[in-house]
Amino acid sequence: MSIGTAQNAADGQAEALAVTPEDVFAAAERLAGHATITPALSWAALDERVGTRVLVKAEVLQRTGTFKYRGAYNRLSQLAPEQRPAGVVAFSSGNHAQGVAAAAKVLGMPATIVMPSDAPAIKLANTRAFGAEVVLYDRWTEDRVAIGRALAAERAATLVPAFDDPDIIAGQGTLGLELARQAEEKGAHLDLLLCPCGGGGLIAGVSLAFSALSPETRIYSVEPEAFDDTRRSLESRVAQRNTPGARSICDALLAEEPGKLTFPINRRLLAGGLAVSDDEACAGVAYTARTLKLVVEPGGAVALAALLTGKIDARSKSVGVVLTGGNIDPPLLADILCRYPG
Amino acid sequence: MSIGTAQNAADGQAEALAVTPEDVFAAAERLAGHATITPALSWAALDERVGTRVLVKAEVLQRTGTFKYRGAYNRLSQLAPEQRPAGVVAFSSGNHAQGVAAAAKVLGMPATIVMPSDAPAIKLANTRAFGAEVVLYDRWTEDRVAIGRALAAERAATLVPAFDDPDIIAGQGTLGLELARQAEEKGAHLDLLLCPCGGGGLIAGVSLAFSALSPETRIYSVEPEAFDDTRRSLESRVAQRNTPGARSICDALLAEEPGKLTFPINRRLLAGGLAVSDDEACAGVAYTARTLKLVVEPGGAVALAALLTGKIDARSKSVGVVLTGGNIDPPLLADILCRYPG
Repeated sequence: MSIGTAQNAADGQAEALAVTPEDVFAAAERLAGHATITPALSWAALDERVGTRVLVKAEVLQRTGTFKYRGAYNRLSQLAPEQRPAGVVAFSSGNHAQGVAAAAKVLGMPATIVMPSDAPAIKLANTRAFGAEVVLYDRWTEDRVAIGRALAAERAATLVPAFDDPDIIAGQGTLGLELARQAEEKGAHLDLLLCPCGGGGLIAGVSLAFSALSPETRIYSVEPEAFDDTRRSLESRVAQRNTPGARSICDALLAEEPGKLTFPINRRLLAGGLAVSDDEACAGVAYTARTLKLVVEPGGAVALAALLTGKIDARSKSVGVVLTGGNIDPPLLADILCRYPG
Repeated sequence: MSIGTAQNAADGQAEALAVTPEDVFAAAERLAGHATITPALSWAALDERVGTRVLVKAEVLQRTGTFKYRGAYNRLSQLAPEQRPAGVVAFSSGNHAQGVAAAAKVLGMPATIVMPSDAPAIKLANTRAFGAEVVLYDRWTEDRVAIGRALAAERAATLVPAFDDPDIIAGQGTLGLELARQAEEKGAHLDLLLCPCGGGGLIAGVSLAFSALSPETRIYSVEPEAFDDTRRSLESRVAQRNTPGARSICDALLAEEPGKLTFPINRRLLAGGLAVSDDEACAGVAYTARTLKLVVEPGGAVALAALLTGKIDARSKSVGVVLTGGNIDPPLLADILCRYPG
């Protein structure tokens, strides 16, 4: 609470946020029995490596291999009966795609997903395996928002945003509720929490959950260096865009700018932002496979990578880290394992 | 109990077993706070693939990446104060090596481990990283038992067997206690349990745990085809050896014959034995990385591989599967990911 209040005072206003902790609690009730309660794990080897106690939220073990199922199910399960036959449309680089496709399948409604043609093959294949229709676009020349909107209008379907949506944010926040409770059960009060950040939906929801259950925890977003819009935006207190045409191996974290709903939440509740290079993210992928025995994609590894490379002083602090997604193409994982022998 | 009693009657005697369920409960108390309580996980995608409900004991997330830490800690923590300064000696293809080395480090005693020179590099490196002295031998021409005994005698150190030891068996059995309780918490009464088997220490301990907590569960050992001594021994009711010189990619499961202590337990408590080919084990490794987002070594994947390849009729049954170890060399994992695209 102290952080939120202080930053809020600095912003000079007490604007209402689009989502409340109560929305996250309500999402958790909706998700009970549908989403996996992923484990929060610790390893002596990791603790020794970073010189502190680390709790890893292994969200790669979530249904569809990423947290995106949480938000998607929370959103889709609230569609009115008359909206369901026309189904949903989403645009996504791949993890939101799978989350929406899987939730639509469970709820028995059609899904159309607009995906970049260079999305990881595993994400394209999984999305199709959930029965969704995949419409490809060129990430660098076409406008996925326009394509998605046109499809939704044409089919009278509901457009499901990847992060800038109250129900999506609340759904992702259930990860935070779980982690705060798991930390408490393990007697590990988290001083710091590091969480990957693309459009900021997950970390916004997680921050809301922590504002209710563990308000003293200082939460940091972690982004790829070329997509560090949230870090710069938190510093300037005003939303900043990334350089057009920037590239990163972290395909899950290529949002152009902070969300209109997510940024006000993150500006109020986050302690700051960090960034890692693609090289550091890949080394994090290799470390995670070799030592933690978990498969994580580059974008899902950035928070752990920030910790492993000392982007923040974590000594003598209890640290939480979220591994957000594990949908990496096997050939890329193979390549990283060979290039980063540890 | 029914299975145990029936088979016991068939054997025509009620010989006392070397380990009791009470020994496993006592080991669990010793291990509390030292070994990781690894999660028991389920995936909708896996359930759909095999047409039944599957609970996976993700023991690759254990300290040292394998269940071996359980038995090693249980054994070493019971050494008398006067035995500790001289330390311990073990011979192992790699996972027991790491378990003993890690437990010795925690308990502050020296460890010498006799390992085959062709052991996976990750196992050699990890064992040394825990501070143990590693003595190499040629798996195909030298006698590791003789080397280990000579070293132990020379140093007045305690020899710690890999599986044929009551404290080792009881320690490994704590995995079974956890799994039986986790299954109950999840409302999943296990009809079947599939567990990798080398010398039979883990499955013996697990079977003792289940005989107390879930006696109706039918437990099957799973071995590599060329090392199916337990399967054949269970069929003939008499211990059978493997063909000398046999090879398998499952380096963790290359025991020559069932243990003198483990086989009487397994003969009484197991429902039967299964075996998979190296090719099936590797496909299991690839599936586990791709879909379950867990890193497992070939020997650790054989139980899941048996389920995935239909070695037993699991339809309409609730099935438990143990993933026993994740210490696979990154280049081998890379190779398997490329050769088994799924």
